Amino acid sequence: MNVAVMGHGTVGRSVVRLLENDPSICVKYILEIPEKCTEEKMVSDPEIIFADAGIETVVDALPGVHPSFELIQRALSCGKNVVTSNKAALANDFRALLDLTSENGPKIWCEATCGGTIPVIKEAASLSGTNEITHCYGIMNGTTNFILDVMKKEGREFTDVLLEAQRLGYAEADPTADICGFDVKNKVILLSSICYHGMVTKDFPVFGIEKISKEILDSLAAEGKTVKLLGISVRKENRYAIGVVPVIFDVSSLEANVPRNFNMFTLGCTNAGDVKLYGQGAGGDPTADAVIRDLKDVQEGSGFGRSYFDCDLVYDPGLLKGEGIIDKEKVSGTLEELSGLACRKNAFFAFLPDFLK
Amino acid sequence: MNVAVMGHGTVGRSVVRLLENDPSICVKYILEIPEKCTEEKMVSDPEIIFADAGIETVVDALPGVHPSFELIQRALSCGKNVVTSNKAALANDFRALLDLTSENGPKIWCEATCGGTIPVIKEAASLSGTNEITHCYGIMNGTTNFILDVMKKEGREFTDVLLEAQRLGYAEADPTADICGFDVKNKVILLSSICYHGMVTKDFPVFGIEKISKEILDSLAAEGKTVKLLGISVRKENRYAIGVVPVIFDVSSLEANVPRNFNMFTLGCTNAGDVKLYGQGAGGDPTADAVIRDLKDVQEGSGFGRSYFDCDLVYDPGLLKGEGIIDKEKVSGTLEELSGLACRKNAFFAFLPDFLK
Repeated sequence: MNVAVMGHGTVGRSVVRLLENDPSICVKYILEIPEKCTEEKMVSDPEIIFADAGIETVVDALPGVHPSFELIQRALSCGKNVVTSNKAALANDFRALLDLTSENGPKIWCEATCGGTIPVIKEAASLSGTNEITHCYGIMNGTTNFILDVMKKEGREFTDVLLEAQRLGYAEADPTADICGFDVKNKVILLSSICYHGMVTKDFPVFGIEKISKEILDSLAAEGKTVKLLGISVRKENRYAIGVVPVIFDVSSLEANVPRNFNMFTLGCTNAGDVKLYGQGAGGDPTADAVIRDLKDVQEGSGFGRSYFDCDLVYDPGLLKGEGIIDKEKVSGTLEELSGLACRKNAFFAFLPDFLK
Repeated sequence: MNVAVMGHGTVGRSVVRLLENDPSICVKYILEIPEKCTEEKMVSDPEIIFADAGIETVVDALPGVHPSFELIQRALSCGKNVVTSNKAALANDFRALLDLTSENGPKIWCEATCGGTIPVIKEAASLSGTNEITHCYGIMNGTTNFILDVMKKEGREFTDVLLEAQRLGYAEADPTADICGFDVKNKVILLSSICYHGMVTKDFPVFGIEKISKEILDSLAAEGKTVKLLGISVRKENRYAIGVVPVIFDVSSLEANVPRNFNMFTLGCTNAGDVKLYGQGAGGDPTADAVIRDLKDVQEGSGFGRSYFDCDLVYDPGLLKGEGIIDKEKVSGTLEELSGLACRKNAFFAFLPDFLK
């Protein structure tokens, strides 16, 4: 199979390098900006890729919504399968992209958009075929987990550990997308949409970890608790609620013990019960490995098509109730109510959903 | 698709009941002993199933090696796909059964043989397609994890908690297969064979938890450690080592915090890193769900065929070295050496492999 890889950053470069050892998949083109086209197979005009009938599948390893979203649209319209690691582009309008797939034509694969190497997208699709998935949640961001884990274990302050995370390459120079929950937002949109077989809203409470201090972690620890940043959603029939929020866990829970920059996802299934998946949620080779597993699945035939979203989902924030801590005050209500209150107070906010008690 | 379900115990009954809601899969026959054939679709002569050209796939939900192994042989020879939850029959001679599959003919699916509902077989096959899996290990038995977890959390003795596990239905009336590691033995044989693409030996050190006392757990706890029964194997090129043994973990590790009767598996991958999968390792509906996911995969075409075992593996116990505790003494060596020593002393034995340090 001949493929084109769009983007030559951390993930794209790993994809190209790992595929050098795979005789079944040949990288024919790499899309790069003109200044960086240093190899023969590098092109800066995507239309060269789309016009080549020998390219069956395009790998999107670009960051950010644009131009990735438009390139995926164009690739699908030209009959090319799309394997993407770009959560922002896909979460921008997954349904619109699925509408460009067809029964016997191109499809979308997106294991690497959520949880890096962790096969959570594939298993969400598989488990949702034989179960109703009633909830999904997870530690979906390695940067924030690294910061919270080091703060807790070493008793250090947020800004101090953030600087270390930046030095180690776990946090970007501008860490906003990770720290404030926007990266998790895209992931929980995609995972929930796949679990529940319909597109979820992009308008829901999103909190980050920037207000979590050593003092807060110490006071939680005194009660045998800690806090982890979760993407979380629940579903009942065709209604669902969703959010990104620091969630309180017992120190003996699995989530509380997820170390450093690792991720852990939970899929709550009617027959299978809770299934959890853990691994590297980012990084060149782990993420590229998920991309390449998707390419293997392309060869075997599968992928997400327009018929996958067969459920019209209705956002119902009343489904996600629990207890919150706003500053030091304990309050009960829905995630939406409590997050509104915390926003108005510009306060620290952590949540414990009823279904996790 | 018409299927036959062989065996109508906990798993078989759940498979039949859950499939009642699935219009794409029809249970045409249930194989039972003559005295228990109470429904129209129940038959006691398996040849009725094998002779029916309308049966494409047979589900084996029987316990024990015989007659399950011979029935799988016969089903494959008659051109039927086999989906099995029977670890003992498959581990008896996986290679011989794979030799009865063919490129365009019947194949084997076996998600439910290892880790109940946990998709560890599917992900081991998937990850081994793009990675060398260098080790796999896991808490593969819910009964022993329940006993160790309750002993640790409630400070109780082994025999006391075993009785409770039996009352709760987590342990059988004759608990030997679970307690002494034989159940885990079959699972680690199957998982390792799938991870490493070749059949592993059946002759390797197997220990259980019957010598683990409250006193031992207390003394480990004083050092911030605990112990879990693992199936474990490592691989280097075409050599491997394998065992079933209580392994020492830090109390802050994920394994130490796996509660009650849950299971957790780790697949160590060259590109993806460590991927862990957690969930219900037994029980009617969770295990049946894995069987039904396999049936969905049959419909999409996949499965294990004879070409899967393309590696001639050589058993090399020298690959699995570490530190052991025999009675209260600390000793170093290979798992095989230390387990031989512990056997001769008839002593408590726990192990910490070098690669987990």
